Amino acid sequence: MLLLHLYSKLLSGSKRRFNSMAISYVHMLQSAGGFQKCNLSFSSHGYPKSSSRTHHLAFASMHTSDPKVDSLLDGIKWDDKGLAVAIAQNVDTGAILMQGFANREAVVSTISSRKATFYSRSRSTLWTKGETSNNFINIHDVFLDCDRDSIIYLGKPDGPTCHTGAETCYYTPVFDLLNEQEAEGNKLALTSLYALESTISQRKAELAEEDNGKPSWTKRLLLNDKLLCSKIREEANELCQTLENNEDKSRTASEMADVLYHAMVLLALKDVRVEDVLQVLRKRFSQSGVEEKRSRATKNSVEN
Amino acid sequence: MLLLHLYSKLLSGSKRRFNSMAISYVHMLQSAGGFQKCNLSFSSHGYPKSSSRTHHLAFASMHTSDPKVDSLLDGIKWDDKGLAVAIAQNVDTGAILMQGFANREAVVSTISSRKATFYSRSRSTLWTKGETSNNFINIHDVFLDCDRDSIIYLGKPDGPTCHTGAETCYYTPVFDLLNEQEAEGNKLALTSLYALESTISQRKAELAEEDNGKPSWTKRLLLNDKLLCSKIREEANELCQTLENNEDKSRTASEMADVLYHAMVLLALKDVRVEDVLQVLRKRFSQSGVEEKRSRATKNSVEN
Repeated sequence: MLLLHLYSKLLSGSKRRFNSMAISYVHMLQSAGGFQKCNLSFSSHGYPKSSSRTHHLAFASMHTSDPKVDSLLDGIKWDDKGLAVAIAQNVDTGAILMQGFANREAVVSTISSRKATFYSRSRSTLWTKGETSNNFINIHDVFLDCDRDSIIYLGKPDGPTCHTGAETCYYTPVFDLLNEQEAEGNKLALTSLYALESTISQRKAELAEEDNGKPSWTKRLLLNDKLLCSKIREEANELCQTLENNEDKSRTASEMADVLYHAMVLLALKDVRVEDVLQVLRKRFSQSGVEEKRSRATKNSVEN
Repeated sequence: MLLLHLYSKLLSGSKRRFNSMAISYVHMLQSAGGFQKCNLSFSSHGYPKSSSRTHHLAFASMHTSDPKVDSLLDGIKWDDKGLAVAIAQNVDTGAILMQGFANREAVVSTISSRKATFYSRSRSTLWTKGETSNNFINIHDVFLDCDRDSIIYLGKPDGPTCHTGAETCYYTPVFDLLNEQEAEGNKLALTSLYALESTISQRKAELAEEDNGKPSWTKRLLLNDKLLCSKIREEANELCQTLENNEDKSRTASEMADVLYHAMVLLALKDVRVEDVLQVLRKRFSQSGVEEKRSRATKNSVEN
């Protein structure tokens, strides 16, 4: 990891150039003090065309000269084209951003540049997501599955991932399609927390529309700060009471759901996304216990 | 959707048999009133061995007799083996549970049975996740990506998804591996909320260990209900104040992070998982606005 960090630092000198082009050859040489960058050559299409277009095995034999990286790459079960599935996932929300394929070079590039990099089967080139759009996916961690033929790129996207401008590439709901509902482009694959966020956001948008019906509870909260804040304080109190009064687990889950929902209505009013909150939490807690303690101590001394 | 529901209902009669075996042929006939199940034959390996072992095109030409389903299947960009990537994701947590491949039959089986179903390339058979372990992945929605060659099975797992007993198949962190840390089996690919949950849970486990150092803030909260509850109430109040005093967005995000963190310490004390809370929210809100309004009205009348 330290070596990769050093390598990343070496790369950062040519960051602007690096950001707009993909590494085509990554040769790492181990020296006494760490890695040295050498023989890095760039191509605007990321891969030397002459060899790649006729090369259907996606550089399955590429080696990095670093035994640890080689050992990692050798451990991956590449398919008959030298590829493994690579899934990019938002580190904060868990949204699956896109899925592509990676060859050995794509994995090396991803872990050294910390930008999600894939092998394009249609163009037979290595490509870094964002090299055209600038919407890079900044890698926080990389995971292999139990079979070692599938990879998660866990990262933070700089902007929408899909080439259509959608946040993720998954916006075509099959059940709606079969039900002949207007579907495409309208409904991202959202997990529970973000489906609720989307519902609240929709209610907020509907406030401008004329509606003679009785407003939903969400709309009433959106229209009445005093009611909303009194509910947040009330639900937080009720959550605490489940501990203080030794109430059962299902009651705790239900009260926590109430706290979350009402707090999320406040977030919607303030135009704050759940993702922003989770980013704060990640930055606060993705530290060692010692650091956490230190930052907490500082925070407490400020508070007290 | 209604038709698929009817089809599911028809299937539910043979649920026990269905749960332990995969559908090998799914032929749907459209009748005036909807779908009728017919020609459903089962095999203990899910696929007729005689044909499958020699059949490398994974039933690319299979049709269902339902034009809507056929149209959906025809719209998917199957690879040269008749497959598309299928990613199973936990509908509540967003965790990527596993990744496999689907052929036409696997998709039909998934949307009709509402159990995540794949095509095993190694065994050349259709297989429903859970057919051996009973840890099915119960499908809530299915999404296609923009290229229509990648599928998300958004579902709720009955139990651990990985054959190793791990919650998901992704527990091998690449950076730790390169750093020669003890990695395998120890670290799931967790997004921010669940990484924090895991940290809190670790602190709770450490309470039993002897420790002469100054306890972390998390540990102090875990050891002192009164302190914890006073912090939860205080942070909820501060969150409200960001609305009441028109404070800036970053302050709201920070206060919401405080609310979440402290509330999650309480959840840990009560052995309630964030996933349980999100399940409550999903069940409460995955309804139409009308139903939401009604349930809220009922809730309010109970509360008031």
